[in-house]
Amino acid sequence: MSAAENGVTQGTVTLVGGGPGEWDLITVRGLRALEAADVILTDHLGPTNQLDQFLDLTGKEIIDVAKLPYAKQVAQERINELLVEHARAGKRVARLKGGDPYVFGRGFEELQACAAAGVPCTVVPGVTSAVSVPAAAGVPVTQRGVTHAFTVVSGHLAPGDPRSLIDWGALARIGGTIVVIMGVRQVRAITQALMSASLAPSTPATVIQDGETPRQRAFRTTVAELADVMEREQVTNPAVYVIGEVAGLGDAHAG
Amino acid sequence: MSAAENGVTQGTVTLVGGGPGEWDLITVRGLRALEAADVILTDHLGPTNQLDQFLDLTGKEIIDVAKLPYAKQVAQERINELLVEHARAGKRVARLKGGDPYVFGRGFEELQACAAAGVPCTVVPGVTSAVSVPAAAGVPVTQRGVTHAFTVVSGHLAPGDPRSLIDWGALARIGGTIVVIMGVRQVRAITQALMSASLAPSTPATVIQDGETPRQRAFRTTVAELADVMEREQVTNPAVYVIGEVAGLGDAHAG
Repeated sequence: MSAAENGVTQGTVTLVGGGPGEWDLITVRGLRALEAADVILTDHLGPTNQLDQFLDLTGKEIIDVAKLPYAKQVAQERINELLVEHARAGKRVARLKGGDPYVFGRGFEELQACAAAGVPCTVVPGVTSAVSVPAAAGVPVTQRGVTHAFTVVSGHLAPGDPRSLIDWGALARIGGTIVVIMGVRQVRAITQALMSASLAPSTPATVIQDGETPRQRAFRTTVAELADVMEREQVTNPAVYVIGEVAGLGDAHAG
Repeated sequence: MSAAENGVTQGTVTLVGGGPGEWDLITVRGLRALEAADVILTDHLGPTNQLDQFLDLTGKEIIDVAKLPYAKQVAQERINELLVEHARAGKRVARLKGGDPYVFGRGFEELQACAAAGVPCTVVPGVTSAVSVPAAAGVPVTQRGVTHAFTVVSGHLAPGDPRSLIDWGALARIGGTIVVIMGVRQVRAITQALMSASLAPSTPATVIQDGETPRQRAFRTTVAELADVMEREQVTNPAVYVIGEVAGLGDAHAG
């Protein structure tokens, strides 16, 4: 029996893109959705550890889904259930995510779970880390006369992994900027695959760790040297690397 | 002689990503930069025609650079000059742009102009239309198990145009989502080039005109039919089209 049939006010779910890290990079619409929420589901990404700095949490229930028992798929299913359960109880539920909900955020899975349960769900887009983190290190993903395209790609699977859905050789040949997220562990295999497919070893590359946070570190190098630089500097997640001519444009405002 | 040497307070420039259209998709940081500004340069993109709805404009100078004499390159140089001139006069200058300043926004050129003139310039990222406009039509640019990459590409030059920097054949083979912006006029040439390079004609495609505005229209079809559909429906700029399996996922919340 639905909440409406029970005579309970129909609850709603809003997926909110929290942006790359600092709380004030959330959108005005996203902030208002959090302010209006009865229940907020957060995780370890986005401005979740700063919630009390920009939001009056009185009367709100905060659920940290990063603390759900460890097992990624189970956790996602449990998140979907929590969204639906609280909405069916008549609550206004906000799901705060890092970056944009649809850029490797599994937001669409949460929307589909709500739709399947008949729970109204809306999405508030966010500033994606894939663009804003390079920007914070002085790297524009596009530049007139330099690149007319950029590809954002997940690097969590090695090129050639049977589960991989990416043709890295084709990616090397597009002629655009390549932004790799979740690619720290596979950086050596990824840069090798790109160079094997004709990407010049001298192509500029910049890696940024903890972008858009006070701990941000960035290193400029080439695609040939990127894996060595990241190993030497002990770059860890969260990190983004950008490969392409834009990574070699003058470092006009950040390091 | 710099403003500082003149004893004038040093002015600043802030490039602000205004998001895809509705004013409340600007970030909190961006809104604050506009609130603090003495001079705001706007154009026809982003939430510029709604400025007075969310901002007290008293005492602020608003310069609509879309009204500069028509000639794109001249206009950009003049924008750069205006940014520098007003900052040198000690003003806090905000440059409001549509989407994100670095996603085909020429923001980096403005930053470089400021840097060359010794004017401090910071960038506030924005929600890019390339991700949020598809989202508003129910299309996620990524989905687990479906696509691990998305490419945002400018379609203003036809494939094969000597000025083109894109290998459309390689783009067809990556295996990721393709998001084409500024591609209304070249849609037939672009879809032909992608299909010639092995993209299946049945690949789903969705085009969205006036995304994230009250006038939004979206049409779901295939890459083979996209040009015909856009012609029949008289799709005009601003429009974005998405090509890839994600464009065929259930239309869970928008049309």
